[in-house]
Amino acid sequence: MTLIDGKAVSAQIKQEIAAEVEQIVAAGGKRPHLAAILVGHDGGSETYVANKVKACEACGFKSTLIRYEADITEAELIAKVEELNQDVDVDGFIVQLPLPKHISEQKVIETIDYRKDVDGFHPINVGRLAIGLPCYVSATPNGIIELLRRYNIETSGKKCVVLGRSNIVGKPMAALMMQKATPGDATVTVCHSHSHYLKKECLEADIIIAAIGKPNFVTADMVKEGAVVIDVGTTRVPDATKKNGFRLNGDVQFDEVAPKCSFITPVPGGVGPMTIVSLMKNTLLAGKKAIYQ
Amino acid sequence: MTLIDGKAVSAQIKQEIAAEVEQIVAAGGKRPHLAAILVGHDGGSETYVANKVKACEACGFKSTLIRYEADITEAELIAKVEELNQDVDVDGFIVQLPLPKHISEQKVIETIDYRKDVDGFHPINVGRLAIGLPCYVSATPNGIIELLRRYNIETSGKKCVVLGRSNIVGKPMAALMMQKATPGDATVTVCHSHSHYLKKECLEADIIIAAIGKPNFVTADMVKEGAVVIDVGTTRVPDATKKNGFRLNGDVQFDEVAPKCSFITPVPGGVGPMTIVSLMKNTLLAGKKAIYQ
Repeated sequence: MTLIDGKAVSAQIKQEIAAEVEQIVAAGGKRPHLAAILVGHDGGSETYVANKVKACEACGFKSTLIRYEADITEAELIAKVEELNQDVDVDGFIVQLPLPKHISEQKVIETIDYRKDVDGFHPINVGRLAIGLPCYVSATPNGIIELLRRYNIETSGKKCVVLGRSNIVGKPMAALMMQKATPGDATVTVCHSHSHYLKKECLEADIIIAAIGKPNFVTADMVKEGAVVIDVGTTRVPDATKKNGFRLNGDVQFDEVAPKCSFITPVPGGVGPMTIVSLMKNTLLAGKKAIYQ
Repeated sequence: MTLIDGKAVSAQIKQEIAAEVEQIVAAGGKRPHLAAILVGHDGGSETYVANKVKACEACGFKSTLIRYEADITEAELIAKVEELNQDVDVDGFIVQLPLPKHISEQKVIETIDYRKDVDGFHPINVGRLAIGLPCYVSATPNGIIELLRRYNIETSGKKCVVLGRSNIVGKPMAALMMQKATPGDATVTVCHSHSHYLKKECLEADIIIAAIGKPNFVTADMVKEGAVVIDVGTTRVPDATKKNGFRLNGDVQFDEVAPKCSFITPVPGGVGPMTIVSLMKNTLLAGKKAIYQ
């Protein structure tokens, strides 16, 4: 069994990005600039955004953090998004989700200029991903593809079961795995809360990508010998032994599943670090205007 | 075994549309107007466009057919698309594919205003479909959903195998079948030329949607008793007994598969008529500005 080390791979990729940025800057080019809008003080969001800012530093990017209190109006937020759309110094930006309930996330996402939408949430990027055109791919699925690539995991013709059909993980993950590409070319099955044969599908899978958000959902009796298991779950579970009072728990019962696997990602240290690094890669692409002019 | 009668259902829907159009017009509203651009003289395209014009008449739509010879430049075609985008009398329009090789189909599609893209090929419509937002759904998958709905075929939790991963059928079909919706909520597996276990997947399927473009590909030994089989294939096969020298051949070996099915679509007369009627439904939505302003 090989433990997929997302932390090491992500550190490696950040070094690769930083090296490219220094080359760009040395040649007189522009340092990529990522802006992030954070509304309110949600604990998870605070952590994610702080990690993104830190990753920008590691990559040699310029970063700007724009903070609002949770009582900002939708119109004010939209106005800021439009301002960032116009700001030629900002190559890409994100609006950290979730937003307060009085603001339409979809409206905000659709206001972002798709050419700066480094989260890959705008319908144009989602649509181009489905069709197989160059685009900003959403971060978590892109990070998983990168792990499969760097560990030389064969996907062509394999049965890949995606657990979960969320717009930001399950669906784009399925789209990428069925694409004519390497990694890709897999036989993809998407299972979810309504699926009658979920366990059977998992048992037949060569690759399981669990993004269902239920701690320890995938047990040993659902996994065949030699399977590849990618765990996207990051549920916060109370844990008195931790300084902050909780631990991140994956969707996979790691201890019992790991011995059966050819490859498996841990939580934390598997998919998580790759997600942020994918955002960095999109920002580099934005800075280089590699996808859109 | 129930034979799904796409011809009858499509005739019924055209009547429903025509009735609604007459109500709209009687109330002083605008008669929906579909324009179609046809480049060259491809036999299949000629037939499709002629059928679309005929369907417009049946639905009480205004229709405009714009013809160009195959040597039209890309710039000229793009200019016409931009003109139709601006034409307030045209509610929706299509550019019949395929286009001559010197013209980029993707560039033409992306030039169409997504609010008039009744084929549902623009990335914005593709992306909104994936996310589950209101949009113009591409015609063939939409027609199949309508057949499943009108025949009260249960899809929730069922195993649905989609054969083929084309951008206009396989992928949007998979997106619709996995959506939180009725029909929908299925466990969806997409198989294609690289799939190792295609036959096994089919044998376990409650619903098979064959859109692989290989005549008689699905044989009786690939279908379980009681399955629902939807045949999207329309390959032209030489047939001396036919006036025009060919017949349309489905992806399913109908004679041997049909006895095992609970429901099956014939070719012709199954999915085909529904495809055109889906375009009519999108045109009605465009005329009513039901999806986009």
